[in-house]
Order: sequence, then structure tokens, then C-alpha cells
Amino acid sequence: MSHDRAVLDALLDSTIVGNVAYVDDDGAPGVLPTAIARSGNELIVHGSTGSRWMRLVSGAPAAVSVTSVGGIVVARSAFESSLIYTSAVLFGSFRVLAGDEKSGALEALTEKLIPGRLGEVRPNNKKELAATLVLSLPIEEWSVRVSDYWPEDPDDDIAGAAWAGQVRFGQAPVTVLDAPDLRAGIDAPESVRALGQ
Amino acid sequence: MSHDRAVLDALLDSTIVGNVAYVDDDGAPGVLPTAIARSGNELIVHGSTGSRWMRLVSGAPAAVSVTSVGGIVVARSAFESSLIYTSAVLFGSFRVLAGDEKSGALEALTEKLIPGRLGEVRPNNKKELAATLVLSLPIEEWSVRVSDYWPEDPDDDIAGAAWAGQVRFGQAPVTVLDAPDLRAGIDAPESVRALGQ
Repeated sequence: MSHDRAVLDALLDSTIVGNVAYVDDDGAPGVLPTAIARSGNELIVHGSTGSRWMRLVSGAPAAVSVTSVGGIVVARSAFESSLIYTSAVLFGSFRVLAGDEKSGALEALTEKLIPGRLGEVRPNNKKELAATLVLSLPIEEWSVRVSDYWPEDPDDDIAGAAWAGQVRFGQAPVTVLDAPDLRAGIDAPESVRALGQ
Repeated sequence: MSHDRAVLDALLDSTIVGNVAYVDDDGAPGVLPTAIARSGNELIVHGSTGSRWMRLVSGAPAAVSVTSVGGIVVARSAFESSLIYTSAVLFGSFRVLAGDEKSGALEALTEKLIPGRLGEVRPNNKKELAATLVLSLPIEEWSVRVSDYWPEDPDDDIAGAAWAGQVRFGQAPVTVLDAPDLRAGIDAPESVRALGQ
């Protein structure tokens, strides 16, 4: 367990989805995955104003899990094998954003997913902004855990015939596809081409 | 929202980590990522007997989120852009496994992460089994959502100059590394080499 803010920020800035846990009206736990972005000291999520879970987490205690799996520690036994990962859990209450804070947070979400895209598209209009609920969680109560090590097998196993090592995942390749209704002569923009690099 | 069990099973069988949400002693929500495996009609998780969250979810209501992000729908506006994903939430109570059920579930976890690995390593010994808590959630109450479509831009935007399409993520490449304490002459086994294919 660590409280290294730089590690947390790198995880939040590179991971697309977080899982928001909440307590339902009847006291039962609920959880939903959603796109996340960090804006300074705030964690941003968004959704439709009609979203039930977003209304449930507005102002109520929530916990957010953000995890990136980097590979597998393959030990000489199943027991000692494990995952390579960075994982954070944040606690707090989301507040509803409005006005400039709301539009700024939506911009942070777009820039997180497709850096540079904001400069290529029109701004959100009033109707779109009104249909969107944007929530922000202060990054105050959190912990982050980095698990990345070599197998720690007992001597008996090391002396045996089984292999040990790591299987590390690289960056997934991307394929860019034109929409069927794309007008002729419009090429994929710089922001989208950069995602594949 | 769908209740297609084949879609759920494919998601559970191909996704390494799920997020387990629970309600803490003080009524606040908690959430933790953990490796998942499916064994027939059961969702399996495991951890140390000393794990606080595993004790909290044993027999208590839980919600488990499992999500796979497949890419980004890049629309002609930020508002219409979204993620390509398959996501499930399962509800229920975990029960503690023992005896043959426990060892079978641990085998399912190993085979899920590294198919074929079980045949290459020694079985878990009694001490290891005793140190491990294995929980099972019946796959009974759940829903799965598949979001994979082309941008649905209004006519005004389609007539404009912005690009639209999909950015789809492929399978991440893997790198296999020998452990520093690996004895000479032991090559990466078939199970590990297969992960890179």
C-alpha cells in the first residue's frame, strides 16, 4: 500500500474506466464501471441526467476502484503465481458540477480519452450540456498499490524443473475505422492517428 | 441491457479482473479489484485468509462489476463520442468454499489466467490451501451490456468537416521474461508461450 500521489495520478491518467461502488436505497451494494478523468485534484465521471446510479452517488459516500493489469507473475507453483498490477481505491462523496466547472470537466474527459480531439470538434451545445450530469470526487482519501515483482518461490521449488518468470502485457494495438456515413475526403484527424502510436 | 448468458460467459472467461463492491461495517461502500474465474454457474475469487475485504463479503450481499473496453466511438462531437465495451454486474452473496470445491475453484483460477499451467506445476499443498480463502458467487442475478456501434451524429454534424469512426483496441502483445533465479536449461513452458500467441 502506498500514498505516492505521482503513482496515483499516472494510474488515473492512463486508465480509461473506473468502478464506482455505492450503497443502494435498500442498503445493498451497487457498482458501475464508467469512464474517468482526473482534473487536478478531482476525479471526474459523467453520464445521462437519467442515470439512476449517478443520482444515487451524488452527494452520498462512494468508493472508486481504478486498476491496470500489467501482466502475470508466473511462479513455479500455482500458489505463488499472481498478477502484476497497479490499483487504487478512492473514497469520498461526488458533487454535481455546474457552469464552467461542468464544461471544464467534460473537456477533461474528452482530452483524457482522445488527446487533442477538443480542437477538432465543435463545443457542446446547451441542450447537450443540459442532458449530461457531471460529478466530481475530491482526490483526498485514497490508497494505491503497485504489485510488480519476481516469483518468490521456496527453495524446494527453485530446485525443481518448473519455469518461473513474468508475462508482461504491452500496449494494445489499435485499428482505426471510418464511419459508414463518413463523407468522402475526410481523413482520420491527428488526435485519432496519435492513438495508434 | 441484455440477459444473454453466452455473452456473460465470454466476458467472464476473457476478463482477468472484476471489482467486488460491498458495504463496510459502518455502512459505507467499499470496492476491491480481484482476479476472477468462472466455474460453471459460479464466479470464483480468492485471497489470503487475512484479507479483510474477503471476510467482509463472505455471506454478505455483494455486487461484482466485470468490464472489457474494446475501443472508442469517435463521433463528430465530443457529446456523441463514447466507449466500445462489454460490461456485466452480478449480484448475490459469496459463500466460502472448502474441500474439493475449494481446490477445484483454485484450479479454475489458475487455468483461467494461464491455460495449461496446472499440468506443469505441483498441486497446492495443505499449508497453501489453509492460507487461502476461496469464495464463490452463484451466477443467478446479473445483467450484461454490450455497447458497440457507429457514431450517431445529427445531420448537421454529418454535413460538417469533422471525422467520425471507431478506434478499436486489439489484443495486447506479451513479453515473456525469465526469473532472475531461474536455473539454466529451463525454457518457458507451452502454457506461457501460448499466452503470447
